Amino acid sequence: MSAALPMHPRLVSLEGGEGAGKSTALAAVRELLAARGHEVVQTREPGGTPLAERIRELLLARSAPGQDVAEPLHPQTELLLMFAARAQHVAEVVRPALERGAFVVSDRFTDSSYAYQGAGRGLDPRWIADLEQRTVGMRPGLTLLLDLDVRQGRARTSGRDLFPDRIESEQDEFFERVRRGFRQRAQAEPERFALIDAAQPPQAVGHDVAAAVAAWLDRQVQA
Amino acid sequence: MSAALPMHPRLVSLEGGEGAGKSTALAAVRELLAARGHEVVQTREPGGTPLAERIRELLLARSAPGQDVAEPLHPQTELLLMFAARAQHVAEVVRPALERGAFVVSDRFTDSSYAYQGAGRGLDPRWIADLEQRTVGMRPGLTLLLDLDVRQGRARTSGRDLFPDRIESEQDEFFERVRRGFRQRAQAEPERFALIDAAQPPQAVGHDVAAAVAAWLDRQVQA
Ligand SMILES: Nc1ncnc2c1ncn2[C@@H]1O[C@H](COP(=O)(O)OP(=O)(O)OP(=O)(O)O)[C@@H](O)[C@H]1O
Ligand SMILES: Nc1ncnc2c1ncn2[C@@H]1O[C@H](COP(=O)(O)OP(=O)(O)OP(=O)(O)O)[C@@H](O)[C@H]1O
Ligand SMILES: [Mg+2]
Ligand SMILES: [Mg+2]
Repeated sequence: MSAALPMHPRLVSLEGGEGAGKSTALAAVRELLAARGHEVVQTREPGGTPLAERIRELLLARSAPGQDVAEPLHPQTELLLMFAARAQHVAEVVRPALERGAFVVSDRFTDSSYAYQGAGRGLDPRWIADLEQRTVGMRPGLTLLLDLDVRQGRARTSGRDLFPDRIESEQDEFFERVRRGFRQRAQAEPERFALIDAAQPPQAVGHDVAAAVAAWLDRQVQA
Repeated sequence: MSAALPMHPRLVSLEGGEGAGKSTALAAVRELLAARGHEVVQTREPGGTPLAERIRELLLARSAPGQDVAEPLHPQTELLLMFAARAQHVAEVVRPALERGAFVVSDRFTDSSYAYQGAGRGLDPRWIADLEQRTVGMRPGLTLLLDLDVRQGRARTSGRDLFPDRIESEQDEFFERVRRGFRQRAQAEPERFALIDAAQPPQAVGHDVAAAVAAWLDRQVQA
């Protein structure tokens, strides 16, 4: 079922673990597309609309305000909140932008749910595929997977993350499952994914990212 | 698939449209069960846990705080938020209470999603059934459906509702679809539902509610 989802020729996603360099790479993608004269809408998940950003707050809060003991957020609740935010984001931002001809570049998208809620939390990937089909109905034409050793990523954000959020507070094993989940998706869909070695220095990562975007655009012109 | 869900012998739900008398009837159910010596947990949906109550706020707000123009909440987002709250409510409150032997009486439960998001908004009931199966996995042993003319219900709450919430602000046609949705569910599962004529005076409604609960308890003792 899920394999039949169309890849959208103007939708680009950036994926990867914590601190892999997604947000840094996003700037390079945006600039390259803008330099070619395209309208670019930059967005992120979970979030991307005011309501979806409020859902993001619920997802990432370590505990509800005013609560002494944090209420555990169950994996199913996490998945459903992620897709509630995503359904809203797709309906309000992604689809309208694509329909008027803009490129949409998203810092995380559906692959993150397969990696975090699927591979990470152990939820049924068929359920995720059904939610994807019903609420998104498409996949990016290009997904840049910034692949990095878990501890290296953690080291990169350690200065910033004095107050890690609920998901950032997980153990390394969790993030190892997430990384394997991402890599398996890249292997299963090589026509969609560009696997970027995110352990390289920033300039080399930027070069690989730009090359992957340029090659993708050129393939589309030829097709 | 959904027909195979087990009915739980200590789970009671109250359903019906706006102002039908669910919250009033709940008190009668709780008292009758307590008088027979049962532990009773009273709860409600959407909500029932601190986190689920925060999801409820997102669901019922007419617009996000600080926004001039309300962001429309898409039907799919509404369904997913409802089930996010429900998954959390079931995992944190309903299932633990049932497992320790308590009765759980809920002001609204899954049938409201079939009626509001299914019949009302037009979302696929097979999707709702799949979400129910995955996140709830059971149905109440008894569902009291307080059935009332839409305008009568509106008249009952008109004094209270100077500031109707997002769902209360819908048109009568929407609530007519919701009412038909509830009645069809009651017809399809007569062994679970007790249909209460909520147009009667409070005392008569209370009498019918108590009789339905007592008959249900007696059936279980016999079985
Ligand atoms: N190739 C790189 N080498 C070394 N440091 C990098 C590299 N790319 C980014 N950084 C730095 O690592 C940190 C994390 O980068 P960035 O915020 O882009 O990652 P991210 O994947 O978006 O992280 P998050 O998952 O927290 O959103 C930043 O301080 C950034 O400057
Ligand atoms: N049988 C009845 N006859 C007349 N008024 C009633 C009856 N039952 C309840 N009411 C009144 O109608 C109003 C709505 O009742 P109640 O709050 O119990 O309904 P509800 O179904 O819980 O409403 P809501 O959908 O808003 O939660 C209350 O003011 C209540 O006192
Ligand atoms: Mg980032
Ligand atoms: Mg009520």
